[in-house]
Amino acid sequence: MTNDQSQIPKPKAQAVTLTPIGYVERDEGDEGLSGDELRARRSRIVLDPALTDGLLGLEPGSDIVVLYYFHRSSGYDLQVHPRGDPGRPLRGVFAVRSPRRPNPIGVTTARVRRVEGNVLEVVGLDALDRSPVLDIKGYSSFYDTPGW
Amino acid sequence: MTNDQSQIPKPKAQAVTLTPIGYVERDEGDEGLSGDELRARRSRIVLDPALTDGLLGLEPGSDIVVLYYFHRSSGYDLQVHPRGDPGRPLRGVFAVRSPRRPNPIGVTTARVRRVEGNVLEVVGLDALDRSPVLDIKGYSSFYDTPGW
Repeated sequence: MTNDQSQIPKPKAQAVTLTPIGYVERDEGDEGLSGDELRARRSRIVLDPALTDGLLGLEPGSDIVVLYYFHRSSGYDLQVHPRGDPGRPLRGVFAVRSPRRPNPIGVTTARVRRVEGNVLEVVGLDALDRSPVLDIKGYSSFYDTPGW
Repeated sequence: MTNDQSQIPKPKAQAVTLTPIGYVERDEGDEGLSGDELRARRSRIVLDPALTDGLLGLEPGSDIVVLYYFHRSSGYDLQVHPRGDPGRPLRGVFAVRSPRRPNPIGVTTARVRRVEGNVLEVVGLDALDRSPVLDIKGYSSFYDTPGW
């Protein structure tokens, strides 16, 4: 056996450093908008121009999964009342979608409306204005649908 | 207006540093297994014990979205043949799910089978043995389903 897993030491929680591939732009900003309202409005993902070739195959109507950094979030609680509603029972941060989490990354499915060079115009994205974007993936019912 | 968006400078691609919250463990390793085979087998997410309280509300049958680091991936191409099949037309890395990407983060929906202290036993996860886990989120049809 060439790869004896038992000899691989237990991994330390070594830091992972990522460089954003672009950022989110909202002409009207995000002041006072709920998550639903953010998703309902169009926003733009402005990609690092050096990465533009990576958009090949995305077109109006394509569904994508967007990973972005919650850049205005800080700190977290391990247990929260969902949506900040004290009437709802406490849940662990790993059971909910709060932006206040140990690694503040958001994941949201959005739909491409327009592609123009290094800019994707999308709808369905709840990221605030100027959020750093970490990744874009084609939506896949294989990876993104429950069913096990 | 207290928050004049027009005065916020265009963000630089400032690095984002994350600390894994745990790692994936597979008793049988992952040697020679396809993505489908990895997903079909149970695996464990071993959480940093200090974060155990964050699992409240996850139970057998809960669907989760797991973010993990492709720790054995290196480098990327901006355009690839999906699944490495040269018969399929080139697509941009942001339209596919290849682990070779600018920020090598995987996102997969999995189902909890068992929770024991800081360990989640899951099925549906395609992460390789010892993958650092960056986040776990409760699956949400609102955030995780196309529909815009």
